[in-house]
Amino acid sequence: MILALAGGVGGAKLANGLAQILSPDELIVAVNTGDDFAHLGLRISPDLDTVMYTLAGRNNTETGWGLAEETWQVMTALQHLRAQTWFRLGDRDLATHIERTRRLGEGETLSEVTASLCQAFGVRQCVVPMSDQPVQTILHTDEGVLAFQHYFVRRRCEPRVLRVEFMGHRQAVPAPKFAAALGDGRLRAIIICPSNPFLSIQPILAVPGVQQALGSRCVPVVAVSPIVNGAAVKGPAAKIMRELGYEPSAAEIARLYQGIAHAMVIDELDRKLSAPIEAMGLYARATATVMKSAADQARLAQEVIAFAESVAVQNEHLNQ
Amino acid sequence: MILALAGGVGGAKLANGLAQILSPDELIVAVNTGDDFAHLGLRISPDLDTVMYTLAGRNNTETGWGLAEETWQVMTALQHLRAQTWFRLGDRDLATHIERTRRLGEGETLSEVTASLCQAFGVRQCVVPMSDQPVQTILHTDEGVLAFQHYFVRRRCEPRVLRVEFMGHRQAVPAPKFAAALGDGRLRAIIICPSNPFLSIQPILAVPGVQQALGSRCVPVVAVSPIVNGAAVKGPAAKIMRELGYEPSAAEIARLYQGIAHAMVIDELDRKLSAPIEAMGLYARATATVMKSAADQARLAQEVIAFAESVAVQNEHLNQ
Repeated sequence: MILALAGGVGGAKLANGLAQILSPDELIVAVNTGDDFAHLGLRISPDLDTVMYTLAGRNNTETGWGLAEETWQVMTALQHLRAQTWFRLGDRDLATHIERTRRLGEGETLSEVTASLCQAFGVRQCVVPMSDQPVQTILHTDEGVLAFQHYFVRRRCEPRVLRVEFMGHRQAVPAPKFAAALGDGRLRAIIICPSNPFLSIQPILAVPGVQQALGSRCVPVVAVSPIVNGAAVKGPAAKIMRELGYEPSAAEIARLYQGIAHAMVIDELDRKLSAPIEAMGLYARATATVMKSAADQARLAQEVIAFAESVAVQNEHLNQ
Repeated sequence: MILALAGGVGGAKLANGLAQILSPDELIVAVNTGDDFAHLGLRISPDLDTVMYTLAGRNNTETGWGLAEETWQVMTALQHLRAQTWFRLGDRDLATHIERTRRLGEGETLSEVTASLCQAFGVRQCVVPMSDQPVQTILHTDEGVLAFQHYFVRRRCEPRVLRVEFMGHRQAVPAPKFAAALGDGRLRAIIICPSNPFLSIQPILAVPGVQQALGSRCVPVVAVSPIVNGAAVKGPAAKIMRELGYEPSAAEIARLYQGIAHAMVIDELDRKLSAPIEAMGLYARATATVMKSAADQARLAQEVIAFAESVAVQNEHLNQ
């Protein structure tokens, strides 16, 4: 069994690569819910939906969010009502949020709702929220404190980030299937997907027990760098790194994951960083990490698993 | 000023007739909210919307509910999610419910939300819920107790009605603008629209204080019969009358409104019922009451107001 920790687009792509080469019951994807928010009275889980839509083959590859072949009737009508429309919700996507909101309102957990939505979308892999309790990513910026989507969508990541906070994380526990996977004897590897470390991965690691579980197992933890040649493949990762005082590079990503990951997959363009990363005590492998096609996803997934297995062997060797 | 008590389609049509011949600040429409319900996590007010959409000229004349030129993307997507779709919600209509739900969730009253939606739809007349407190119309039937929409839409009015109940009505008070209109010195007439007496008008009359206010004023109360030639113009009024032991006729409608209305407008096809209605102590006038066009609505509205004014004169005469 493989456990992947994922945020939005980058995480969803690698998860989809893993889904292509594993049988459905061999993959569990634990997804960041720090971006979740209530909007227009609806409960929205952007990263869960991106992973679910991607695994269903229904994701919108142009926007990077929402469903393909989407229509915008409700949004247009909301505009006429002078309602808030800065967060764009397509008609089909809205159905997901309406159904999620209804089910949560009836007392189902986010895990249960997600499982049910995945089933309806024909997703057979296990997709779980990092936690069923609310954890809210809050950004302290030069424009004041901003809730995640206000920073990310409304203000287009323009404010300068001073600090990232995960509100409520101390009261959260890993979602039951995530917790079970972390302790599962069949677990062969944990993969930290090429998602934003500050906004997608750290919220998952901030859920009490997750980081400890990662460290207490003889299971290789392999991170894939979201930074390629000093820039983020997508999103504000490089900008935030600079603002928080890190040089945007795969080596700095490795430093962030020191003590958490055993190994780093970096892009072939960053091959020269293998040595400094290995000097930090992490195994490093350079390969093509930018996923432009389903084939790219599958190939990278295959390489990451093979790398993880080699790390596992070496770990076992070390433990002897 | 004219105060109209209205339910769905019939009420909305006469309200629209009144809107055509009065200036916007001369008309207030108090609308039944006994049909309101929460569905898919959304707060839906069918009669308020029918009145609002009709006054905006946006109502769907084919279905009798919802908006004209509607699309169904969200409903189709909900079907794919195996969500409940027995209550059809068009995409543009959904925007109304989403915005209402959001505003109610933020603590606005139904009156405030309705005023804001009306403004967005360009409706300048005052449309108010009968009450800002929840009153739920419940039907005791041969299939057991059914919430209104389950009886009306899901079971298509097929169950036999034994009794109608307005849950919560004792805790309700008339909405502020409705209460103000009931006591307003400028009030020239109160018009009970040709809506279902059991399902649309009685819930309004059941709100504590409404019936008393009607009886305590020297303002003519004129009811328009929803029954024409022994049948309902639309909906289950005649069927329910029979099930509750009333003969479906305009005369029986008059009997239901005895002590509440001073006068009845009945259809020209029921002209012979004028005498029996007048024998009950109500003024009666027969005219064409079926509204097939905007011109029909305006003409009936004009006749109802003229009739009300003649009643008012006679009342004043009697009071001298």
